[in-house]
Amino acid sequence: MIVEVIAVGTELLLGQIVNTNATWLGSRIADEGWDAMHQQVVGDNRARLAEAIRVAMGRADAVVLTGGIGPTQDDLTREAMSDATGRPLQFNEEFATELAGWWQRRFGREMPVSNFRQAEYPEGAEQYPNPRGTAPGIGLRHEGTWLFALPGVPPEMQGLFDANVAPRLRAEAGDLSAIVSRVLHSWGIPESTLGERLDDLFTASTNPSLAFLASSAVIKVRITAKGRTEEEAEALIAPVEDEVRRRLGAAIFAVDRETLPGVVLERCRARGWRLAAAESMTGG
Amino acid sequence: MIVEVIAVGTELLLGQIVNTNATWLGSRIADEGWDAMHQQVVGDNRARLAEAIRVAMGRADAVVLTGGIGPTQDDLTREAMSDATGRPLQFNEEFATELAGWWQRRFGREMPVSNFRQAEYPEGAEQYPNPRGTAPGIGLRHEGTWLFALPGVPPEMQGLFDANVAPRLRAEAGDLSAIVSRVLHSWGIPESTLGERLDDLFTASTNPSLAFLASSAVIKVRITAKGRTEEEAEALIAPVEDEVRRRLGAAIFAVDRETLPGVVLERCRARGWRLAAAESMTGG
Repeated sequence: MIVEVIAVGTELLLGQIVNTNATWLGSRIADEGWDAMHQQVVGDNRARLAEAIRVAMGRADAVVLTGGIGPTQDDLTREAMSDATGRPLQFNEEFATELAGWWQRRFGREMPVSNFRQAEYPEGAEQYPNPRGTAPGIGLRHEGTWLFALPGVPPEMQGLFDANVAPRLRAEAGDLSAIVSRVLHSWGIPESTLGERLDDLFTASTNPSLAFLASSAVIKVRITAKGRTEEEAEALIAPVEDEVRRRLGAAIFAVDRETLPGVVLERCRARGWRLAAAESMTGG
Repeated sequence: MIVEVIAVGTELLLGQIVNTNATWLGSRIADEGWDAMHQQVVGDNRARLAEAIRVAMGRADAVVLTGGIGPTQDDLTREAMSDATGRPLQFNEEFATELAGWWQRRFGREMPVSNFRQAEYPEGAEQYPNPRGTAPGIGLRHEGTWLFALPGVPPEMQGLFDANVAPRLRAEAGDLSAIVSRVLHSWGIPESTLGERLDDLFTASTNPSLAFLASSAVIKVRITAKGRTEEEAEALIAPVEDEVRRRLGAAIFAVDRETLPGVVLERCRARGWRLAAAESMTGG
């Protein structure tokens, strides 16, 4: 399952905001065990955005767009989806009525006409209610490829991804593959010496795969494996990790291991939540 | 002058690091008055990287790659540049000797063979010394398009961009155009109402151009103009800003104005530097 992220917005190209949406989505896609080969950033331009969608649909199984689905004139993601798929925009009257009612209740006035654009969707698409904002997410399966449009505001994007995009892609991926990364932090060995010592491991390995991340004096060695389960991925990593540790010795001073349950736990901690587990009838 | 940034590295796709290089480069490109239409992120894969370079060269006047020029086996930017341009890799013996000497002095041992890869460059390219690291930057003018390869480590990338890339592109751009943005922060007006009030300004304007940036209750209106000088760009912004202020009234609570001199001053302040200016013989 190859998933490509397209972040939409001229402010990203101008460097006025940092593309943390791509980082968050990349990390979630990796957690789920799906592959990411490319990311794109495009400005608020209908023709260029439609072209970016076409390119992504030609090489990925699912495309996740973020940004450009608000009510203003530079929100062009719906139009570009329509252009890229040849599916005309439809109007969801029920949602529009709901939105207009919400406006009356919240602001005590008529909803501006431009807001009705948020009720539009390419023919055949699903709309996902957005509890943190007004623009609904959009999901469209077109010629075997999933195409999702999410808001650019991070909490809205994240909520819709977890509630709607991830479950649909999990169902599509069927036998969910697990991905586990181990990152060994080394210090005091220059990058090229390290590369030389691990040369054959690097060349031979596809699963697990090895990569080096250099930042000043610390060089990280990342070992990434995929399996049907996390345990299977762990079992693939273990012998390679042992070998890397043997060759680099005392230069390794720390290790990171990030997995989906680990991330969940960390997020619970960050929110001050506690996790309770109850087990019954497993005989153990 | 259209400049496209390609950030290289699987760690970006996996969301393990944030793509701040693209943000920094985007902001510098805008400061210089050049256009950015697309950004790409590609993993450490030679074929996909070569294809990304080809695509970018087909639509931009200059392509800036960051990442993938270190000494290890997953550093494939040099090879991909060679593949994309059909220019075989050459070996800079002088630089290799220098690098080997530096290794002897610094580590008191032979340089690992793999480090010699950093002395390679596509036929016809320039190499730029990297005072903050070992991998030199690369600049190649191929069929009218500039192609630059910079390191992924931010301070190394930034130093090489300012010292080598920017001057070459300024010379290329000739009559340097200035770009100035004004960002008006509004509060209390919903995005769609704001869009409605500014509709005609949005539709009519190309220089200056208008954009909306929404983040929760604060909606920012960005007015961006280009001119031959900053003053010319300012003069284009002024009447549009007045009109926007007139229509939004008290909802506007703050304004940002970022220009190249402003950024320089801000950076001086951040470092605790003071700026002295001396004027003479101008008769005023």
